[in-house]
Amino acid sequence: MALIVQKFGGSSVSDAASIKRVAKRIVEARQAGNDVVVAVSAMGDTTDDLLELAADVAPEPAPRELDMLLSSGERISMALLAMAIHAMGYEARSFTGSQAGMITTADHGSARILDVTPVRLREALDDGAVVIVAGFQGFNRDTRDITTLGRGGSDTTAVALAAALGADVCEIYSDVDGIFTCDPRVVPMAKKLNVIGAEEMLELAANGAKVLYIRAVEYARRHNVLIHARSTFTPNEGTYVLGDGMPDPRLAKGEAMSDVIGKEEPVVAGVAIDRSQAKITVVGVPDVPGSAAAIFSRVAALGANIDMIVQNVQSASPGHTDISFTLPKDEAEAVAKQLKADHDELGFDNIYFDDEIGKLSVVGAGMRSHSGVSLTLFEALSSNGINVEMISTSEIRISVVLRDAYLDAAARAVHTAYGLDGDVEATVYAGTGR
Amino acid sequence: MALIVQKFGGSSVSDAASIKRVAKRIVEARQAGNDVVVAVSAMGDTTDDLLELAADVAPEPAPRELDMLLSSGERISMALLAMAIHAMGYEARSFTGSQAGMITTADHGSARILDVTPVRLREALDDGAVVIVAGFQGFNRDTRDITTLGRGGSDTTAVALAAALGADVCEIYSDVDGIFTCDPRVVPMAKKLNVIGAEEMLELAANGAKVLYIRAVEYARRHNVLIHARSTFTPNEGTYVLGDGMPDPRLAKGEAMSDVIGKEEPVVAGVAIDRSQAKITVVGVPDVPGSAAAIFSRVAALGANIDMIVQNVQSASPGHTDISFTLPKDEAEAVAKQLKADHDELGFDNIYFDDEIGKLSVVGAGMRSHSGVSLTLFEALSSNGINVEMISTSEIRISVVLRDAYLDAAARAVHTAYGLDGDVEATVYAGTGR
Repeated sequence: MALIVQKFGGSSVSDAASIKRVAKRIVEARQAGNDVVVAVSAMGDTTDDLLELAADVAPEPAPRELDMLLSSGERISMALLAMAIHAMGYEARSFTGSQAGMITTADHGSARILDVTPVRLREALDDGAVVIVAGFQGFNRDTRDITTLGRGGSDTTAVALAAALGADVCEIYSDVDGIFTCDPRVVPMAKKLNVIGAEEMLELAANGAKVLYIRAVEYARRHNVLIHARSTFTPNEGTYVLGDGMPDPRLAKGEAMSDVIGKEEPVVAGVAIDRSQAKITVVGVPDVPGSAAAIFSRVAALGANIDMIVQNVQSASPGHTDISFTLPKDEAEAVAKQLKADHDELGFDNIYFDDEIGKLSVVGAGMRSHSGVSLTLFEALSSNGINVEMISTSEIRISVVLRDAYLDAAARAVHTAYGLDGDVEATVYAGTGR
Repeated sequence: MALIVQKFGGSSVSDAASIKRVAKRIVEARQAGNDVVVAVSAMGDTTDDLLELAADVAPEPAPRELDMLLSSGERISMALLAMAIHAMGYEARSFTGSQAGMITTADHGSARILDVTPVRLREALDDGAVVIVAGFQGFNRDTRDITTLGRGGSDTTAVALAAALGADVCEIYSDVDGIFTCDPRVVPMAKKLNVIGAEEMLELAANGAKVLYIRAVEYARRHNVLIHARSTFTPNEGTYVLGDGMPDPRLAKGEAMSDVIGKEEPVVAGVAIDRSQAKITVVGVPDVPGSAAAIFSRVAALGANIDMIVQNVQSASPGHTDISFTLPKDEAEAVAKQLKADHDELGFDNIYFDDEIGKLSVVGAGMRSHSGVSLTLFEALSSNGINVEMISTSEIRISVVLRDAYLDAAARAVHTAYGLDGDVEATVYAGTGR
């Protein structure tokens, strides 16, 4: 008898019908003889509606009160879900973040989990009840106030519960079948991965893959939680995200080693694409110590998160250099404006703003031990006449910046070049994968 | 500097605009130099909407989960209200029932307040903050579960907070100006009362007056809390509900005794009408000991609440008696059905069900010391050709059952007969008074 933590997002509990469907799914896991703990998000657009209400009464809602307001969303979904399970003849109890012992920092709107003390959850499990926990929320011990975890909070809640309760697996349900070698809406021949390393998953998520949130994967990796990303709409297995040295669960299920490992593991696990970034190029910066620092200190002051940086010596005018960097589109304009304003102190010739770029990343733990991985990437791109504008690499990732317009074609070409194409087109569901 | 508790119902906070209006009202009390604690209900129809959702997922929602669900409604309104006050430049903090120390029994859906430990509220007041508390909800110490207080719960929350904090006054806001000598929608010449005794208020509320809930008035009387029932829409003073031996607050305000007492206090404080009841008459019951008990034990078994009972010896057939009693319409049919089913054991001749009755009650503490009060009532009715079907009295009340169709006319006639008519017609607002 296993302990399973399941997480269902807002789109999975958007109305009474879908809540009943999820309840059925939970009861099936219970009937299979498992202890079940569920983390649930607020129904459909509840959170957005509440944010709208808040904006209507106050231009800048007080953070403490905003968390109090938003935390009501999960109370609604979790209570309804518990009722639906009751109605199917099974005991179920819902718990708020504070009742579940989800102790966080006091940073309203973006609180971090400090500790989980699931005393009441254990009691409920011992009583044979299905446990429903409000995702996305916790409380701070010093202020005794309610907090929320910010974007992707419910995934983090689920993983944190799995860690605290020593769950066998943390199932993150969404409207896609699992983690794909690339977004099937862009690369139809993308394959669903049966397993992926947490390290690779982090690189994919950080570079545009949307199925899992980085924070949750990080937490799972740190606390050795096995994540199973799967679909609400099918009983099929999805993708297992394996922490360092974690055994492949399919082996544990007694499947033959050959089924699992089969041929040699591919060097590249997947290809991620990202259209959320813009590029700023500062031309003709005096090539003296501190000139780059002067620029990036201003960027940091605006709280912008820089992704890639490239610096070239200007062949044209010696003693000068060009600096290009990428950052989220919604942060880029303010940064460009600030730099222009400080033109005199920074003493550059010109500044260019470009929001028509796309980033393609190739991720694979195998890169560590294989050479020539990047060659395959550049050949695939050049043979398709696609120009590379920027390059950055990590131990297990190569990222390139291209024209946005060529990004999809590039993804398909690279996906094929690394031998990732499947035999059949992937089924694509509506929705974002969240 | 006084401590004021204010209660605002759902209709007063039904949208962003009305929430801002209420916030302004609260800030005015704060600006006047008072400490302010606010009990607020869920926005508009929130509670009904949540009940509907619950019915959609479960035929009989689990009581614990239903309270968890419903308690989210006040979290939304109180957080928004606190934000709106913030936006006006004043510190405000919202607290759930459990954060406010509202300790109740574990009876989900109809919990009773056992104790109030407002530690956090005192802290917030000491910090100069306006305190907003979720009405209608509390928590049970043993189960550590969230509870709701049932109908009129927010009024009770406000009064309980006023008692626990030793507030100078508990202001219950609604869409009517206060307590009237009769419902102005029925008796246009009804006068707003400046003060009324808690004992009289209880009798009026118990007999159809809708402005205040009985539970809240009872709690206020027991804990010596001064209630001020007033309107959200005007700055005018409403009606003070005075506990036993409580001084008239208008004297405390230094108004001349003559203004306050003026002429001799009227014998009758007000006239209440009630259309919520039905009458059941059991004809030809054997006039032997225990025959009435046999009937009423069956009524009690169905949980029905009997109001008036009249028993007459049958002149026609000696040894038999007729028993009539009134009870809420929604409980009456089941009772009549049960009695018919048990006809053989009860051995009556016939049973009549009548849901076209109305009850008129005259209430006044002065009745204790004045004779002939009932005479005025019966003369007023008879001179208008209105027949009395049942009579019941308490120390300070006379109630009569009439044909529903004559109830309004009767109320006007009786109101005039006791000299309660005002000089001008009362302004009537839309809404029920809640």
